[in-house]
Amino acid sequence: MNPIKMSKKLGGKIEVKSKVKLTKKTLPILYTPGVAEVSKAIAKNKKLSKIYTIRKNTIAVISDGSAVLGLGNIGPEAALPVMEGKCLLLKELAGVDAVPIVLATQDTEEIIKTVKYLSPTFGGINLEDISAPRCFEIEERLKAELDIPVFHDDQHGTAIIILAGLINAAKVARKDIENIKIVISGVGAAGIATAKLLLRYGAKNIIMVDSQGIIYEGRDGLNPVKKEIAKITNREKRKGGAREALKNADVFIGVSAPNILTEEDIKQMNKDAVVFAMANPVPEIMPALAKAGGARIVATGRSDFQNQLNNVLVFPGIFRGALDNNIRKITEEHKIRAAKALAGLIKKPTSGRIVPEALDRRAVRTVADVFKKKSLRTTKQE
Amino acid sequence: MNPIKMSKKLGGKIEVKSKVKLTKKTLPILYTPGVAEVSKAIAKNKKLSKIYTIRKNTIAVISDGSAVLGLGNIGPEAALPVMEGKCLLLKELAGVDAVPIVLATQDTEEIIKTVKYLSPTFGGINLEDISAPRCFEIEERLKAELDIPVFHDDQHGTAIIILAGLINAAKVARKDIENIKIVISGVGAAGIATAKLLLRYGAKNIIMVDSQGIIYEGRDGLNPVKKEIAKITNREKRKGGAREALKNADVFIGVSAPNILTEEDIKQMNKDAVVFAMANPVPEIMPALAKAGGARIVATGRSDFQNQLNNVLVFPGIFRGALDNNIRKITEEHKIRAAKALAGLIKKPTSGRIVPEALDRRAVRTVADVFKKKSLRTTKQE
Repeated sequence: MNPIKMSKKLGGKIEVKSKVKLTKKTLPILYTPGVAEVSKAIAKNKKLSKIYTIRKNTIAVISDGSAVLGLGNIGPEAALPVMEGKCLLLKELAGVDAVPIVLATQDTEEIIKTVKYLSPTFGGINLEDISAPRCFEIEERLKAELDIPVFHDDQHGTAIIILAGLINAAKVARKDIENIKIVISGVGAAGIATAKLLLRYGAKNIIMVDSQGIIYEGRDGLNPVKKEIAKITNREKRKGGAREALKNADVFIGVSAPNILTEEDIKQMNKDAVVFAMANPVPEIMPALAKAGGARIVATGRSDFQNQLNNVLVFPGIFRGALDNNIRKITEEHKIRAAKALAGLIKKPTSGRIVPEALDRRAVRTVADVFKKKSLRTTKQE
Repeated sequence: MNPIKMSKKLGGKIEVKSKVKLTKKTLPILYTPGVAEVSKAIAKNKKLSKIYTIRKNTIAVISDGSAVLGLGNIGPEAALPVMEGKCLLLKELAGVDAVPIVLATQDTEEIIKTVKYLSPTFGGINLEDISAPRCFEIEERLKAELDIPVFHDDQHGTAIIILAGLINAAKVARKDIENIKIVISGVGAAGIATAKLLLRYGAKNIIMVDSQGIIYEGRDGLNPVKKEIAKITNREKRKGGAREALKNADVFIGVSAPNILTEEDIKQMNKDAVVFAMANPVPEIMPALAKAGGARIVATGRSDFQNQLNNVLVFPGIFRGALDNNIRKITEEHKIRAAKALAGLIKKPTSGRIVPEALDRRAVRTVADVFKKKSLRTTKQE
């Protein structure tokens, strides 16, 4: 069925459902006067809202429609079908009740305030399709000010699945992430978060490239976030375009734009190169071309090629785990453990299989389990 | 089962459910890349969001927790179970998907802004348990600024069911609403809305009483809303307390506080008096006492007495009708027609039966039908 026809028929991909049948007998328990008992108990102890209400299992998927898929700033109404889809995935894969919320403002301060005002309703906040660099401040501020987990999936879901894929790709190509040169094309939400997570994991040599070329300290027109990333990447102080960056690189990670690389560009890379061309739906370079240029392992965001790096493997488990374990902050440590755990699902990685398939049902539990206290303790003992 | 136990067991009375099964085949239709087609179509024509997304059948039930049931200002977390209950009723009775949203602000301007920001997500807004007089400005402003229906149930749901009850009570008591004296105790959300709707319906002689006594022009300390209502009520310019107001009154409508009237007070009223004592759970006067004082017809908000005036007979049908007929504003005319339609469900009103039972399944369709264009046309021809 085509997506428009399906939307027309359904009028929304998700619905609200009651957990209890409404009868003369249940009415006074579910609503007045009985519900007053529940309200009074929560008024005395607000924490009970996480046990007695939808907060226990419900998150909000919030977007301002400023950076939707590859479509750009299409506004809240047009973003809503995407958020609905995300909510459907959260329920179907992880049993998480998720409510899509699209906002008629793109002002950073107003978004922060609005999400704070909504927060007593929810057990977690998934930020979605909010453009960089606003998304960084919005997420940081909300993480600092709210006592429920806040996760910007475009940043961290993408970073986690890329790290998971890279862990296994490095195994296959017999490369050591700490010692290889990694080029990241795209310095938006996904690019910045991926660079930070890889650095945290141990990568030391990352070069970031935006549409103006390599990011280096002192380059004209860098926004504050790019200035910050310039300080911790590009240790060789290179300048130039993507091709210069790729010279002797081991890994290319594209979270940028379609068709920006050629076979010749890939040939600049080291032997057994790893190419993650994640631009969607048209990748930075088509897999066949990348292979022709000498890439050993190629991954994309698409389901019709090998090695789909899809963050649907990540975010359902993140929220399942955070809700089940009453986690207030999703930390860098959680993210690295999630990436490792996902990579670990592939017992014998090959060039054609570095991560599980998008709907692999093991992923949710695997990711969720990294939030268990026991699980963290075990790691420290390792 | 007791309400606390049920809440503990359920962890929220409602859940989110997908309308489509998630499979390898449906994933690219429900989410990327297929969903981009739907987003692009809506980006071109925002109105399509009311056909292609949850907006078609989803409203928000929004509260700031400032005036919850009879519990007062208990805050958003404690208000959430009540909003959940309301959402459950909307789905079970009217098939309307409703999302509870409780806000961590009680600032009028911030609430107005927040609801405006949320509005692209929803097909309608039900405001709930927001204290007077803030609720009046919030509702008026949102009605003016949004292109989806906004309905403050504490005001209008209550006013409509009271008018419905009064239409039939007047029949039983052979009184003419235009010529009788009506005392309304309580000048908050429900009292003000009831007075306005009764005036609009044709009542001419209304006296309003708050905790300080009768409202009259020039009384000290009236807020702007009470000043306005002072101008259009109390045409006899009476002063004094509730007992003075009740002298020769035909109808008492209480939306105020428990046990404020005595049998003696009721004796001040005219013959065949009508007493709607709606304070919950303890009415302004218990039905037996009111009858002993000479009341012919007594109604309360409670299910354990005759004549329960419950707005559950109103709001589900209001939103069902507004969504189905793409109504942008719920007007005074809609409200009066809804009250008449509900009254009409009781073919032969008696002193013990002036409105349908709370869960009478005919109510939703009856109320929803007043929003049909055809239905409005028919009336004009009447």
